[in-house]
Amino acid sequence: MKVLVVGANGQIGQKLTEMLHRHDEHSVLAMVRNQEQIETFSKMGIETVIADLEGSVAHLKQAMKGCDAIVFTAGSGGSTGADKTLLIDLDGAVKTMEAAETAGVDRFIMVSALQANNRENWNEAIKPYYVAKHYADRVLMQSNLTYTIIRPGGLLNGKGTGKISVGNQLERGYIPREDVAQTIVEALSNEHTKKRSFDLIAGDDQISVALNKL
Amino acid sequence: MKVLVVGANGQIGQKLTEMLHRHDEHSVLAMVRNQEQIETFSKMGIETVIADLEGSVAHLKQAMKGCDAIVFTAGSGGSTGADKTLLIDLDGAVKTMEAAETAGVDRFIMVSALQANNRENWNEAIKPYYVAKHYADRVLMQSNLTYTIIRPGGLLNGKGTGKISVGNQLERGYIPREDVAQTIVEALSNEHTKKRSFDLIAGDDQISVALNKL
Repeated sequence: MKVLVVGANGQIGQKLTEMLHRHDEHSVLAMVRNQEQIETFSKMGIETVIADLEGSVAHLKQAMKGCDAIVFTAGSGGSTGADKTLLIDLDGAVKTMEAAETAGVDRFIMVSALQANNRENWNEAIKPYYVAKHYADRVLMQSNLTYTIIRPGGLLNGKGTGKISVGNQLERGYIPREDVAQTIVEALSNEHTKKRSFDLIAGDDQISVALNKL
Repeated sequence: MKVLVVGANGQIGQKLTEMLHRHDEHSVLAMVRNQEQIETFSKMGIETVIADLEGSVAHLKQAMKGCDAIVFTAGSGGSTGADKTLLIDLDGAVKTMEAAETAGVDRFIMVSALQANNRENWNEAIKPYYVAKHYADRVLMQSNLTYTIIRPGGLLNGKGTGKISVGNQLERGYIPREDVAQTIVEALSNEHTKKRSFDLIAGDDQISVALNKL
């Protein structure tokens, strides 16, 4: 599959893009925001496309031309305000879904957040972020896309272990970004993950074993 | 019908609450945020209930006990940030819908904003507000509630004329808050407004005539 990574310049995005680039069965198109971000990827021989999540659905549709799958791992980030959370994490995500539907790109993996499905468990300090992720996920579940919604716990920079735990109602937990990226790669063509949503934290199962239990 | 007005202390809310209180066929329950807001209503003999849109669905369900209809005209307002827009205008609205569904309060009127359904026409300056209203409206349309979504243009304080224009794709326009409130009152039991959404601006038709054209 040729996979468009939306948010390729992000911390999960960079790891994921490299993994897909090295992968035997997949190729990758890194979607980035501006010319400066291109260099990181082009010097590794990775194809890039410039597109803006604040642009139109037609603009995003153009960017995903020739792709078979999309991974949405963009985020407005902690340093911007809730206005960008609404425009990027919610509306930007939904515009990407709408573009995918009209472009016929059926496979869509969303990187969400642990417990985004359970309003009661949202962290008070970043509640507006959870609202945005929650409604983006809801729209995705009601779309016609073959979605997978991955809700990772607290993200760590350390090396991945390749061992995870998945479930629909996991306690608070953490996971290295590398293992999130690896889980996305394996989910892409794993039938058990299609039309499914799950929490993801570090655990005891090999990634493929954990996904096959879904 | 007994109508819960969510956002009764707002500018449309106050006019609407008074109209429903004086109405022959309806009664009103004014939902307010705190003890101070009660006085305005209680001195007019209007029943009130204190509830918080940042509270749980169960809390909101409790507030609407005994009601037959809900009008959502709350808004976080221009003086708060986009974080409150997410928590009140989007999540607060959807929690009210979920509470209405579980409480069996079937009739739900949403006060939205002109063109909230058309991303292309959102005012750049208040785009995050439009995102919140858009997704709240989308969730309502997918609910099991008998909804009416009213999308008024720029709100004026002047006296109402009782003459409106409704449609699905109206040009920019303005309307007195008094006419918005009167339109809500007439929509409550007008069959043509059920499961419908429409833009609303000042116009040439009597309110009932305009609604019957929907």
